[in-house]
Amino acid sequence: MKNIVTIGGGTGSFVLLTGLKKYTKNLTAIVAMSDSGGSTGVLRDELGILPPGDIRRCLIALSQSPKILLDLFNYRFHNGHLAGHSFGNLFLAALSEITGDFEKAITKASEILKIEGRVIPVTLTKTTLYAQLENGRVIEGEQNIDIPKHNPKLKIKNIFLKPPAKSNPRALEAIRKADLIVIGPGDIYTSIIPNLLVNGTAKAIRNSRAKKIYVNNLMTKYGESNDFKVHNFIEEIEKYLGKNVIDYVIFNNKRPPKRLLAKYEKEKKYFVEWDEEKLKNKHYLAVPANVISGKNLVRHDPDKLAKIILTVSELENVFKIYKK
Amino acid sequence: MKNIVTIGGGTGSFVLLTGLKKYTKNLTAIVAMSDSGGSTGVLRDELGILPPGDIRRCLIALSQSPKILLDLFNYRFHNGHLAGHSFGNLFLAALSEITGDFEKAITKASEILKIEGRVIPVTLTKTTLYAQLENGRVIEGEQNIDIPKHNPKLKIKNIFLKPPAKSNPRALEAIRKADLIVIGPGDIYTSIIPNLLVNGTAKAIRNSRAKKIYVNNLMTKYGESNDFKVHNFIEEIEKYLGKNVIDYVIFNNKRPPKRLLAKYEKEKKYFVEWDEEKLKNKHYLAVPANVISGKNLVRHDPDKLAKIILTVSELENVFKIYKK
Repeated sequence: MKNIVTIGGGTGSFVLLTGLKKYTKNLTAIVAMSDSGGSTGVLRDELGILPPGDIRRCLIALSQSPKILLDLFNYRFHNGHLAGHSFGNLFLAALSEITGDFEKAITKASEILKIEGRVIPVTLTKTTLYAQLENGRVIEGEQNIDIPKHNPKLKIKNIFLKPPAKSNPRALEAIRKADLIVIGPGDIYTSIIPNLLVNGTAKAIRNSRAKKIYVNNLMTKYGESNDFKVHNFIEEIEKYLGKNVIDYVIFNNKRPPKRLLAKYEKEKKYFVEWDEEKLKNKHYLAVPANVISGKNLVRHDPDKLAKIILTVSELENVFKIYKK
Repeated sequence: MKNIVTIGGGTGSFVLLTGLKKYTKNLTAIVAMSDSGGSTGVLRDELGILPPGDIRRCLIALSQSPKILLDLFNYRFHNGHLAGHSFGNLFLAALSEITGDFEKAITKASEILKIEGRVIPVTLTKTTLYAQLENGRVIEGEQNIDIPKHNPKLKIKNIFLKPPAKSNPRALEAIRKADLIVIGPGDIYTSIIPNLLVNGTAKAIRNSRAKKIYVNNLMTKYGESNDFKVHNFIEEIEKYLGKNVIDYVIFNNKRPPKRLLAKYEKEKKYFVEWDEEKLKNKHYLAVPANVISGKNLVRHDPDKLAKIILTVSELENVFKIYKK
């Protein structure tokens, strides 16, 4: 059974893991640790713990527990001073305080939720994400990049962590042992690249014998990836990961219905287009595929995505031919 | 195996259940629903749920789960706006909101925590506890009776619920089917009698074929039971339960070390004394026993207490002789 490692955070990882877990039990989710918004941000500030939100989503995706326990873990309080808090975040926060160790808390939560696979924070350093805009201004904190308080028309020129984050040895080991590494989908500057900013992570991916697949986003995000086409995403990833590392890029070629796109336009989010010329004759093989689902949201379909990832990962020969 | 029902709330029920569960799997805890202090009070006010605190303690007592899950359930947040909240209370609150039903929440929590036995709220009516003092003044809310804001030297003359509470049919059925009913230990006005104030509960206990044991408190509580001796506790219970109902009274006759009593004196809590003459020739058999434990707190020893309860409950013949 293939040893698969996913690298990301947020909803993208949730969907990906939900799909992949049907096909392999040998699944490790490496998760960015720079989230600082909402319930997670409050718990970081007040309790000084590492951000639990994205870990929570991955645990739920990999859990074999009864639905009620997952509903509970996902539940958000609506009223009073608990309003906005996800119960799963409080769960991880309390375990973190009891065990005095965020990774032990994840291990214990993994047992309680009966997860198959592993969820690993990319770093255990308490660090903050910064973005430098094209006008030179520096934005502090994932929550201010994610929901931009700056002029969202300005491009992000550079992104970094302060203090520098040390890589988690468990994450490096998982990368080293992987047969297949899947990067993305997810918000490029706030979920994907923060993993690559952790010292040693990009290098470990480069050195891993695993095949590396990058799964591109379905929609652009205002303030992060305005007007991005598929190759723009790849170029940004390569800026932090290194060139000639990604073997395959999976991008969606099925346009969602207009009615749905109109909803996204209100948030200035647009369908990600691609430019065939820019994807040809690359070190990676760009694979267009219908990977969407959803009637009310444009989302990756977990099963379609898992199937294409596993198919592509078997393409060794085709790929060698293509590369020539 | 004896079908045992306990009636109470708070730490007393926790200790009692911890002891009894070693001897029977047929154990039902009926719990008062008038708690309104601390974390429980905030959740009642803000989320409009029934009070989770005493339910939480009983679930923990009956759980077969690994220690970490119990530590988690008992964990209290220390910092930020979560400070003071028990994680187990948040657990029950979230389950209560998800299921839309406090009893369903308890059932689900019981499954998750792998409890042996059952925990049943005495009522599902959202009600408030009131105490009328000997000077006529009425105190509203369990939290104001428990930690008195009034002059604690004034006796409590009468205690009542508003609105009147309907009995929970599951509680009545458990009482009806019991072989043995254990009332107490626990704070008399804020943990024990609130059960008897729920319409139909006292009557169901009176009509039950079960043997009824009352376990007396070890220490008096300032503002609730100042200067109470054993017979004063019994008389107060009987005021709400009815006379000639209790078959056995177990009271502690082992005085804790002076050093420990001195600590309690600071809170104006005193060792409960007994007056032999007042306990003779009663419809109940008063059984003195060494039931204490603890080096830093005066507490019932779970095992000593369970053993004497089970021994006493076999005393049929002795009791008949004594009654004559």
